[in-house]
Amino acid sequence: MTDTLIIGTIGLDTIETPFGKVEEVLGGSGTYASFAASFFSKPALVSIVGTDFPKHHEAMLIMRGINLSGLQRTGKTFRWEGMYEFDMNEAKTLKTELNSLLDFKPSLPEEFKDIPYLFLANVDPDIQLAILQQMKSRKFTVLDTMNYWISSKKEKLLEVIKNVDLLLLNDGEARQLFGTVNLVHAAKQALALGPQYVIIKKGEHGALLFSDGKHFNAPGYPLEVIKDPTGCGDTFGGSLIGHIARTKDTSENNIRKAIIYGSAIASFNAEGFSLQRLSSLTPEELERRFHEFRTIREF
Amino acid sequence: MTDTLIIGTIGLDTIETPFGKVEEVLGGSGTYASFAASFFSKPALVSIVGTDFPKHHEAMLIMRGINLSGLQRTGKTFRWEGMYEFDMNEAKTLKTELNSLLDFKPSLPEEFKDIPYLFLANVDPDIQLAILQQMKSRKFTVLDTMNYWISSKKEKLLEVIKNVDLLLLNDGEARQLFGTVNLVHAAKQALALGPQYVIIKKGEHGALLFSDGKHFNAPGYPLEVIKDPTGCGDTFGGSLIGHIARTKDTSENNIRKAIIYGSAIASFNAEGFSLQRLSSLTPEELERRFHEFRTIREF
Repeated sequence: MTDTLIIGTIGLDTIETPFGKVEEVLGGSGTYASFAASFFSKPALVSIVGTDFPKHHEAMLIMRGINLSGLQRTGKTFRWEGMYEFDMNEAKTLKTELNSLLDFKPSLPEEFKDIPYLFLANVDPDIQLAILQQMKSRKFTVLDTMNYWISSKKEKLLEVIKNVDLLLLNDGEARQLFGTVNLVHAAKQALALGPQYVIIKKGEHGALLFSDGKHFNAPGYPLEVIKDPTGCGDTFGGSLIGHIARTKDTSENNIRKAIIYGSAIASFNAEGFSLQRLSSLTPEELERRFHEFRTIREF
Repeated sequence: MTDTLIIGTIGLDTIETPFGKVEEVLGGSGTYASFAASFFSKPALVSIVGTDFPKHHEAMLIMRGINLSGLQRTGKTFRWEGMYEFDMNEAKTLKTELNSLLDFKPSLPEEFKDIPYLFLANVDPDIQLAILQQMKSRKFTVLDTMNYWISSKKEKLLEVIKNVDLLLLNDGEARQLFGTVNLVHAAKQALALGPQYVIIKKGEHGALLFSDGKHFNAPGYPLEVIKDPTGCGDTFGGSLIGHIARTKDTSENNIRKAIIYGSAIASFNAEGFSLQRLSSLTPEELERRFHEFRTIREF
């Protein structure tokens, strides 16, 4: 039974990195997040695609057990073109075609309104807020966003933040949103808005969890080959809500474990373009890497 | 009995950060390193100052149990002026007056040549090499350097690296020296040169230890106030060699512990200008922070 609801985008990505170029591959925050969540729980993805969206992509998501009954279809699918320079730290957006995303109606199917675990992946804060208002019995909500919304819809975004349990930001976004370079200060400001937890993602440097009086520092995984970091943040968030839904445990201790699962999945994701690597990932490989995260931080 | 030998600079620093300005305070790689080492072992510092060097600085180092019998005196003391911008990540050098450093004769007192634990803090690689050649029964040698020497004396520096047990670099230096953005690749190249261990320091993001087939990821400490990061790398290195000398254990497991002690001392160091904070640091506070480093890693 579906226990995890994910709201996010589905898109066709054209990506260039120092390791190659791919055209119109499956991407989008909702795609990456739900694919990652499917390693842990039974996710439903609410999103929108165009009538041109390839059937085999949809089939692949359904094969992973992702409920697509809330998928809307109209016009042309959202497209994104980006490239990564040598240091692979940040995508440079070359082109964005919103297309059908502009028609995304955030109205939930009735049967989704009681799903307990919700991940608002990166979409317009207006949509995120509209979704929150329709949910009837949320147990735990994770929110992701991006610099674009911090610049263009800060007030609306703050309103969303006040209504979630866990806020995900990367370090640059945290600094931007709270006007401080010190991540501890940024996290405190975030917690003061309402969320019980704040996670600051730092790419190759790992992630930081802040909650009332507690702090957890998750290591980055020492990857030798980073082919394509697209979707790492989304798979991190999807794993997080997936692990929480699977365990029905929102204690700080369990959020720590969820972060390590998220870091493990994100590290695999970076090893290939699009969902290449995650498509072949086995539960045994995942557990092995989870365990490796323990060994690299023991002292 | 002196068990740790440290070679480095002593200087008078003028530093401006967003939290204030200090003039002609005690600084230098050898000063910071030996002060930190004194929390763990019995260090001797070989360095040079001018005849203008304030007696009370010397007295303070001696009070910490630092053996200064190898201290040379001539001309005017080395001076450095630097400032940190808002993000506190990197010092901008405003002025460097080498002064007596130009006359630094790397000739060791006879009684220092049998000291087992050696830290070559950041000085000219020619001096580091000359010191190595005089040592008679080294058990473990740690090497630190900086971008300036990588640019200006790379070949000589590589020769030093081939003759030490542990190489310390920050992430920028590792990328510069080995011509790669990937720190795992940089570390592998460093290990191939000879050292048994390589540590890549990443400032607020912690530190990475690489050795044959093993990896350790040390967290950064979540400091709310960073007053002055000057000397953090030097205190990290000094703590490292100090802990190794105290325990006489160069196993990978023990190097991990040494890194956490180094991280703890460096985090205290950043809380004040010059040696302000370390001067009042108690062993209990140090142990408490060491323990905190465990709690922020547990999952």
